Amino acid sequence: MGVKFAKRIENLVPSGIRRVNERALALEREGKKVCHFELGRPDFDTPEYIKKAGIKAIEDGDVFYTSNFGKLNLREAVAKYLSEKKHIPVAGENILITVGLAEAIFDVLAVLLEEGDEILVPDPVWMNYVNIPKLLGAKPIKYDLSEDNDYQPDMSAFEERLTDRTKAVVIVSPHNPTGSMLSADTLKRIADIAKKHDLTVISDEIYERLTYGENGHISIASLPDMAERTVTLNGFSKAYSMTGWRIGYVAASKEWISALNKIHQVNTTSAASFTQTAAIEALCGENDEVERMREEYRIRRDYAVKSINQIKGLSCKVPEGAFYIFINVKALPVSEEKFAEYLLENYQVAMVPGTVFGENGRGYLRMSFASGIEELKEGLSKLERAAEKIFVDK
Amino acid sequence: MGVKFAKRIENLVPSGIRRVNERALALEREGKKVCHFELGRPDFDTPEYIKKAGIKAIEDGDVFYTSNFGKLNLREAVAKYLSEKKHIPVAGENILITVGLAEAIFDVLAVLLEEGDEILVPDPVWMNYVNIPKLLGAKPIKYDLSEDNDYQPDMSAFEERLTDRTKAVVIVSPHNPTGSMLSADTLKRIADIAKKHDLTVISDEIYERLTYGENGHISIASLPDMAERTVTLNGFSKAYSMTGWRIGYVAASKEWISALNKIHQVNTTSAASFTQTAAIEALCGENDEVERMREEYRIRRDYAVKSINQIKGLSCKVPEGAFYIFINVKALPVSEEKFAEYLLENYQVAMVPGTVFGENGRGYLRMSFASGIEELKEGLSKLERAAEKIFVDK
Repeated sequence: MGVKFAKRIENLVPSGIRRVNERALALEREGKKVCHFELGRPDFDTPEYIKKAGIKAIEDGDVFYTSNFGKLNLREAVAKYLSEKKHIPVAGENILITVGLAEAIFDVLAVLLEEGDEILVPDPVWMNYVNIPKLLGAKPIKYDLSEDNDYQPDMSAFEERLTDRTKAVVIVSPHNPTGSMLSADTLKRIADIAKKHDLTVISDEIYERLTYGENGHISIASLPDMAERTVTLNGFSKAYSMTGWRIGYVAASKEWISALNKIHQVNTTSAASFTQTAAIEALCGENDEVERMREEYRIRRDYAVKSINQIKGLSCKVPEGAFYIFINVKALPVSEEKFAEYLLENYQVAMVPGTVFGENGRGYLRMSFASGIEELKEGLSKLERAAEKIFVDK
Repeated sequence: MGVKFAKRIENLVPSGIRRVNERALALEREGKKVCHFELGRPDFDTPEYIKKAGIKAIEDGDVFYTSNFGKLNLREAVAKYLSEKKHIPVAGENILITVGLAEAIFDVLAVLLEEGDEILVPDPVWMNYVNIPKLLGAKPIKYDLSEDNDYQPDMSAFEERLTDRTKAVVIVSPHNPTGSMLSADTLKRIADIAKKHDLTVISDEIYERLTYGENGHISIASLPDMAERTVTLNGFSKAYSMTGWRIGYVAASKEWISALNKIHQVNTTSAASFTQTAAIEALCGENDEVERMREEYRIRRDYAVKSINQIKGLSCKVPEGAFYIFINVKALPVSEEKFAEYLLENYQVAMVPGTVFGENGRGYLRMSFASGIEELKEGLSKLERAAEKIFVDK
């Protein structure tokens, strides 16, 4: 039989990041050693104190369905963190626990976007923000982030993108794939536009703990009158190195949480019980574990940025947050697509072509520096050789 | 600001099961002791050998993203189980690992159903099968399961429900909420209709390990030429008492798995890594753990059925599978809704009104017997007193 699937999935392209990863894994199966700079996957094991809490929960029989909203003490712990550290005025009832940031994004967009609605999303961006609106029959409208402008949006161009179908604006800071952060001034101007045009701001803050400069991360929901119109998305995967635990959250108005739970309930029911318990400990039992990982990322970042900027034909900005470097390869004699392929096939160094993240990624490669320093050294030395050789081979 | 949510969520009503559960929990917070017969939640702890495997996986640092499809060795273990025990001809590539059965249902329906499409679903049924099609703009068309007909569909009425917009048929066996099973003859006739009209069969087999009669469960995908048109849904929550682990799967053609993964990837990314490892052990390391739980359920079932049929005004069929009894309360002087409320408020016994599962649930209460025998004794004795008293109070 030939199944006729729903049209909505025609708009979905398989993840370009996973495509690179799958090719890298295939090379490994052929016996080759690959430097993995393609996934946003910290190489650190989950900190011991969190693993212990998860293990104890399993031992204690914490193995049953939880409330669909998530465990109340986790919701309260998240609310306390957001109030105290991010100055977002929320209580437990403003939090929904989800299966990672991914489900949070999916549920939020599914609750909000009607067929024909428009949503402003950065270009470049993690493609779920483009693919899910399309899946829902809505239109992602791109606003540009460019290296020339330090990856800050041009605010007048931004405002010109708005129409009477625009329902929301997505911001991602620290930003995947560029590692940039929105400045305090940019955030204030986005907040003003959101208030002026009565828009929802969807703020992806999954990398907010991982910043390296003097400017700390600011949650847009902490700006005056913004909490009511902001949906803040976050999770435990990146800062706590818990990608495999699948635990994230949404912070928003009660009205939002109640609407979101309707989808969440029929989508995944709830996140795993003992991972929720481990997440409580992640927040409440933390000493210097996240700080130590952050410091290690900073060292790796500095090493990688310095190395890249010494390679002929390549350059990059210093990322302020997350664990990505957006490498400018425009001076090479081939496209970023071709160079990524050349690098992977001939040097077994896996990076993601910038175009996977949108048109503004043309001429860039995204490199994750969430790998250990030895792998960085080896991979960057191979990158240097590849960049030299491509001028000859071309 | 007033957020205007998408119309699709207007069709979603919060779970009627969870509504009863939340009221029951509120009564407990007031200090009352509640007999919980409302949730499909086994009371057994997850078997030790599975917990150990999950714990070891966490200890070993099995804490990172897995393949979106799920770990290959889990997919292969599931395929082996389905081939050997359920006679479904599948390999690892035919399996997608999901966040519980819930995500499996959501992804399958989202991949298949277009606006205006029709899908046949039983009445009564777990409401996700009604709510998700509505969410997607499709039409759930009910086929009747009635006590008079031993909860087997009338096949000519079934076939009359089909139109040229019908894309699929949902079957659930063993069945929630009635505890009935589709007979071999019924399955054969549904298979014939599916082939004749070129329909997909979505077969929910989450309770297939929990059957108590002489007739074992038959997977419809094992019937001739049915594997290609059947999407089999299952998971570890019920048989292995792993509701909180959130791990399920879909078995289907490669074409289906590839389409499903597109949604799964943007929805939840993957199930938690170490829960996948624990699920492998659940399948491969099993001795008599599931059998022992099943035997205990059988004892509880027999006790509960006998007790209920001795209560004036109440009656029930003997459920062949799952852990639900669908109690006929039509002889009582009040509706099932009123009686469920009366029972909970005055006797602190929580059961779900049958109408939560559809119009054919009118006159019934769903009772879960996944509680311990002591709680059953206490709850059923209170049920008897309530059923006597309602004739007086009314």
